[in-house]
Amino acid sequence: MPINCKEIPEQYARVQENLKKLNLDGMLAISLENFYWLSGALVTTMKSIPDRIGAVLSILDEDPVLLTCSIEESLVVDATWIKDVRTYEEFKQSPIVVLADIMRQKGLGKGRIGVEMDYLVACYYEELKRELPEVELVDVSVLYRKMRMVKTPREIKILSHAAFATEEAMTRTFWEAKPGDREIDVLNNMIIKTMQAGGSQPSGSFGTGPKSAVAHPFADESPLRNGDIVSVDFGACFDGYYSDIGRTAVVGASGERQNRIYQSLYDVQRRLIDMVRPGVKACDIYFKAVELLHAAGIDLSLSHVGHGLGLSIHEEPLLSPFCEQPLLENMIINIEPFYVTDEGYHSEDSMIVTKDGVELLSTFADHSKIIPITNK
Amino acid sequence: MPINCKEIPEQYARVQENLKKLNLDGMLAISLENFYWLSGALVTTMKSIPDRIGAVLSILDEDPVLLTCSIEESLVVDATWIKDVRTYEEFKQSPIVVLADIMRQKGLGKGRIGVEMDYLVACYYEELKRELPEVELVDVSVLYRKMRMVKTPREIKILSHAAFATEEAMTRTFWEAKPGDREIDVLNNMIIKTMQAGGSQPSGSFGTGPKSAVAHPFADESPLRNGDIVSVDFGACFDGYYSDIGRTAVVGASGERQNRIYQSLYDVQRRLIDMVRPGVKACDIYFKAVELLHAAGIDLSLSHVGHGLGLSIHEEPLLSPFCEQPLLENMIINIEPFYVTDEGYHSEDSMIVTKDGVELLSTFADHSKIIPITNK
Repeated sequence: MPINCKEIPEQYARVQENLKKLNLDGMLAISLENFYWLSGALVTTMKSIPDRIGAVLSILDEDPVLLTCSIEESLVVDATWIKDVRTYEEFKQSPIVVLADIMRQKGLGKGRIGVEMDYLVACYYEELKRELPEVELVDVSVLYRKMRMVKTPREIKILSHAAFATEEAMTRTFWEAKPGDREIDVLNNMIIKTMQAGGSQPSGSFGTGPKSAVAHPFADESPLRNGDIVSVDFGACFDGYYSDIGRTAVVGASGERQNRIYQSLYDVQRRLIDMVRPGVKACDIYFKAVELLHAAGIDLSLSHVGHGLGLSIHEEPLLSPFCEQPLLENMIINIEPFYVTDEGYHSEDSMIVTKDGVELLSTFADHSKIIPITNK
Repeated sequence: MPINCKEIPEQYARVQENLKKLNLDGMLAISLENFYWLSGALVTTMKSIPDRIGAVLSILDEDPVLLTCSIEESLVVDATWIKDVRTYEEFKQSPIVVLADIMRQKGLGKGRIGVEMDYLVACYYEELKRELPEVELVDVSVLYRKMRMVKTPREIKILSHAAFATEEAMTRTFWEAKPGDREIDVLNNMIIKTMQAGGSQPSGSFGTGPKSAVAHPFADESPLRNGDIVSVDFGACFDGYYSDIGRTAVVGASGERQNRIYQSLYDVQRRLIDMVRPGVKACDIYFKAVELLHAAGIDLSLSHVGHGLGLSIHEEPLLSPFCEQPLLENMIINIEPFYVTDEGYHSEDSMIVTKDGVELLSTFADHSKIIPITNK
């Protein structure tokens, strides 16, 4: 039976190509991210209530089948291009038993089936093996990550808006804040502005003074103190896709040493961004960062200097010493050098790899200097 | 070696008791929820960046060991009572290899070790089995759920504030809204008020008119139309603990049929709440709900009528036909009958099981009638 859907989305075409290449009979998508990426249906309870799993079963040369909890059926049917939507009743039926039945109906009671071993939990994994003892389960975690690296036009549109809107919300918040404001109120203002731009699940780390040197510090009720660095790494979710921006501000006027450190960090970031183009290896950007930071008297304190961005906050390619993936057109990546001394300095921006270079997405305002918090 | 910590929290005492009872040599906590519950350290990236796992290794009659990514070390050390904190370097070391080393050092290279099979992903599970072939892995998913059912005084304090503050934010938002307001603006106002009360990660479903009959509908840019039901199921995270409140409002004045349906639903909810006390089985509340709703001419459209609430939105006990767990003092549960016809009606409240009855937590405002949205 050939594929019947008139409009196969790009995502399903990529899956079909890889099923052939890897000699797989089918492939499951059970994580919220891959389920949404393939089906178009964003079922947020798949994360907030993890027992309530859903699955897209891709089948070699055939239409896919989607399985969801009956509670989510109307939402899914409205959102997906997939015609064959099946359901299970929560608590009454095991979703794995229902899934195994569907697989047998589709002739997949044996054969090679891809699963996300980095997402499928051990109890469901064991149950699936018991239900389908003749199936060979093949780990396709890395394959999904690779398939999702290059973004579609719709994804680029969402991620571009997400990056710009988040940076705008952060910058405007710094502009409106003043010495003495409580950290938590400043963060809440940032969150509100991000949500008004369409973001949900806003979250981030907010560190001032010595606390800026801690990874992922929480905002608290302390007031912003003159001279303190304010280091914020912040993002939200827009239609299932994440933003992730880092900015460094200072309460009142920055000192000479603070300016010097930030300037070095910012210059390094710019030089790394200038390297970005198709064909450059992810690890080479990391190695360059180490070299440039070392030359500036800074020892890199992070295990990576950036990452792909999309349905997860950290996606492939990771700009780490171990990732040899070459950059490709229409990848979206973040570059984020970080420097920790008695205070923490950070600058993180999102960009798209273009045909012959790079286009920055977080371009609301210049941040070549530490952003002053003065409300003047 | 006996336990050295001077102040063993209640949580670790429960773990020790169960290690003995189940003849286990140790037990791992790797989910954000159980890691936080045991250690006191809330490492939010354990959820947002799932590869970055952490673990608390509880050991029979000994102090626990905590493993975290080096990036999170300072945060964890500040927050936890556990003295033995180890780290691994992301991307450079496999956290499972480091964990297995620690287990061998602690004499747990063989024996019976509890793991959360409902959280540990299949690839880490397979790696752990390869690293420690002589260890017998025992599923303790259900055990952790049971250990977390009865809340500590600190948990009760956080959850009480969370429920009341969320209900207040929702109610005040309805009071401030008016016909013609866009759904998204009303939801954002609710979110802002919740965050100002200390909530993070606010999220919820927001359905108006026919859309209120869909499970988990999203707010959009449509205006609130006179006569439409507005059904909102909403919550946020407070210090790692969730709120989850459901309310039904109407734009302008409600019609007679709408009032009648809501009145039946509300009366059923009150009668279910009156049943709550230690010793009553969770399933009996579900069966009573079916009986009462049926008598009111309503067929129950949900597979459960409530649930425990805590570090997850759905915790044990589940008020479903399959849960025979008796209620216990200091459980926190939600009761949430739902009725779907051409519109969706919902009322969800949080309560604590007391020594001889129940105490409602979401008591900001009376909601025995549909909340009118008139801004008068």
